[in-house]
Amino acid sequence: MDPRIREHAETIVEHSIELEAGDNLVIQLPSEAEDLAVALHEYAGDVGANPVYLNNSERAERAYLRARGDDFELPDHELALYEEADAFVIARGGGNVSEKSDIDPETTADHNRARRPVQRTRLSKTWCLTQFPTEGRAQLAGMSTEEYENFVYDAVSLDWEAQHEFQQQLVERLNDAEEVRIRSGEETDVTMSIAGNTALNDDGRANLPGGEVFTAPVRDSVEGEVHFDLPLYRQGREIEDVRLTFEEGRVVDFSAERNEAVLSGVFDTDASARYLGELGIGMNRAIDRFSYNMLFDEKMGDTVHMAVGSAYPETVGEGNEVNESAEHVDMIVDMSEDSVIELDGEVVQRDGTFIFEDREAE
Amino acid sequence: MDPRIREHAETIVEHSIELEAGDNLVIQLPSEAEDLAVALHEYAGDVGANPVYLNNSERAERAYLRARGDDFELPDHELALYEEADAFVIARGGGNVSEKSDIDPETTADHNRARRPVQRTRLSKTWCLTQFPTEGRAQLAGMSTEEYENFVYDAVSLDWEAQHEFQQQLVERLNDAEEVRIRSGEETDVTMSIAGNTALNDDGRANLPGGEVFTAPVRDSVEGEVHFDLPLYRQGREIEDVRLTFEEGRVVDFSAERNEAVLSGVFDTDASARYLGELGIGMNRAIDRFSYNMLFDEKMGDTVHMAVGSAYPETVGEGNEVNESAEHVDMIVDMSEDSVIELDGEVVQRDGTFIFEDREAE
Repeated sequence: MDPRIREHAETIVEHSIELEAGDNLVIQLPSEAEDLAVALHEYAGDVGANPVYLNNSERAERAYLRARGDDFELPDHELALYEEADAFVIARGGGNVSEKSDIDPETTADHNRARRPVQRTRLSKTWCLTQFPTEGRAQLAGMSTEEYENFVYDAVSLDWEAQHEFQQQLVERLNDAEEVRIRSGEETDVTMSIAGNTALNDDGRANLPGGEVFTAPVRDSVEGEVHFDLPLYRQGREIEDVRLTFEEGRVVDFSAERNEAVLSGVFDTDASARYLGELGIGMNRAIDRFSYNMLFDEKMGDTVHMAVGSAYPETVGEGNEVNESAEHVDMIVDMSEDSVIELDGEVVQRDGTFIFEDREAE
Repeated sequence: MDPRIREHAETIVEHSIELEAGDNLVIQLPSEAEDLAVALHEYAGDVGANPVYLNNSERAERAYLRARGDDFELPDHELALYEEADAFVIARGGGNVSEKSDIDPETTADHNRARRPVQRTRLSKTWCLTQFPTEGRAQLAGMSTEEYENFVYDAVSLDWEAQHEFQQQLVERLNDAEEVRIRSGEETDVTMSIAGNTALNDDGRANLPGGEVFTAPVRDSVEGEVHFDLPLYRQGREIEDVRLTFEEGRVVDFSAERNEAVLSGVFDTDASARYLGELGIGMNRAIDRFSYNMLFDEKMGDTVHMAVGSAYPETVGEGNEVNESAEHVDMIVDMSEDSVIELDGEVVQRDGTFIFEDREAE
């Protein structure tokens, strides 16, 4: 076994979910990730936890969804499993990222609706979403399998304590600030209030890799234009060069170079899908390239992302409205060149470098 | 996908567990058997059942057992899953049948003890134990992978309705009989009472392949000698040429050509391990060779098996004692040559051929 798989498992167990003796653990991994499952079982045994091992198979799920089609029911036995669980680890992987490309979106939506209590219960536990490097994911990222393995294991194996401290400097500045302005190139200049809202430090717990600081914009405060110059991947399709114009928080104009119709579908989902739910700043510099996987892309060093749709309630301060939407679509701006983040008029990052770091000396 | 995998799944869903709309199904398969999982999900979707897919990984289980060692707890979340389930499908497979060869038997015993409520709950549901043909299993059987696939799919795809009728003829004769005498070669001549006990027709439900008729001997009635001329595989070790002598039901003398100590360990487990719990007659003639897998071997056409240890309570009539033991070890006699089964003095099978069939005409 690649020794990095054991290190990955150790990070999950000791850092991300802080597994303890007696914990009931659910591990859900694709078949390709059996090595990671073996390592997680080893650490679970060391700690004295009780693992149940689910197979997270997109092939099996696709077969089920297509055969059933609709009228999905709440699976009481799966719900009971999670109700009695303390911690939950799920890894993405899979041999083919297009595995679910021929499922009717209505079917997926109906299935998700029926399973909502399962999803809510899972999220009420200590959980970690992580990645196993498969050939399918490497192919999507345009990397060789070995290169992609290096990419994944570098990203998940940061010194998370040091990363926490690095990120905490930005968290504190955001929590002291009222207004954020983001400028990049010729086409991005957007301002928003974050007054009263809370910035959180993602240091590799619920997401591994972690490596971002995120908060919620005050719902109606966003004004300006953004050109998201990094692509996003949605429903198996790549959307490129999204441009959004905000007025009083609402997207009043949008365009995309490719698959604009998919973007249009997002905005049609509900009225709140046109409002930002999240502002995030990617700070994981081990993620130095785009891999068409939001779990990594949104943490990429020297980027900013904004999500239209639902806000994380824990980032929204008392008295501010939590944007609630069935959508949460992250889009990314490259901040490494000709870019500035300002807090209350003060530059906090220029061309990717924060004022609180001496990057040349790294 | 090999079309036989879909047929296998169809047999499981429609015949073995008779899955119905709304049923909560648990599927537990090794990673190697993902194709079977896909097909089972497809049929579960067609029927309108709700599947949960567990990975039955001996590698992961080994890692956990070795790391934890002892002090296993009842996993409440796994128990809750099965309590809310209606049906359960488990397949053996795995890449290496020796995967658990380096686990301390004490560890396995402690783990099994802690999980007993899970096991009891599973067995209280509609369940099916079946096989996925892996390279490891083919290797154990001494067959090429393709030959082994043919062997497995032939064995599970009998016309189960016809097989049921064929077997029912023996069931009725056994249920009318009081004494069974089995003679084979120079070394096997054993008699036992089955008076009051019930013979059951295994037509591919809880076991797939099925293909045996089985009952319980009256505990203290077994007299004589048996030479089990087919080997058995236990704790990763092959036991050959077991010879047992019975007096008043009890094994009073035993020997084996290889690994006699393992056999001796079985008899030391508890006092009831020296008594027969089962007499079975293998009637699945698609299983025409030994494969070191009791799920198949005990169903092999033209064989008889006897198990020392626990009896199936449903085979023991009122007033007869149910032999209760922590062991249940099946051993097989080849009946294809120089062999006879007699019921109350009447020959019911000679050299593998039953009196109720015209085998030449097949």
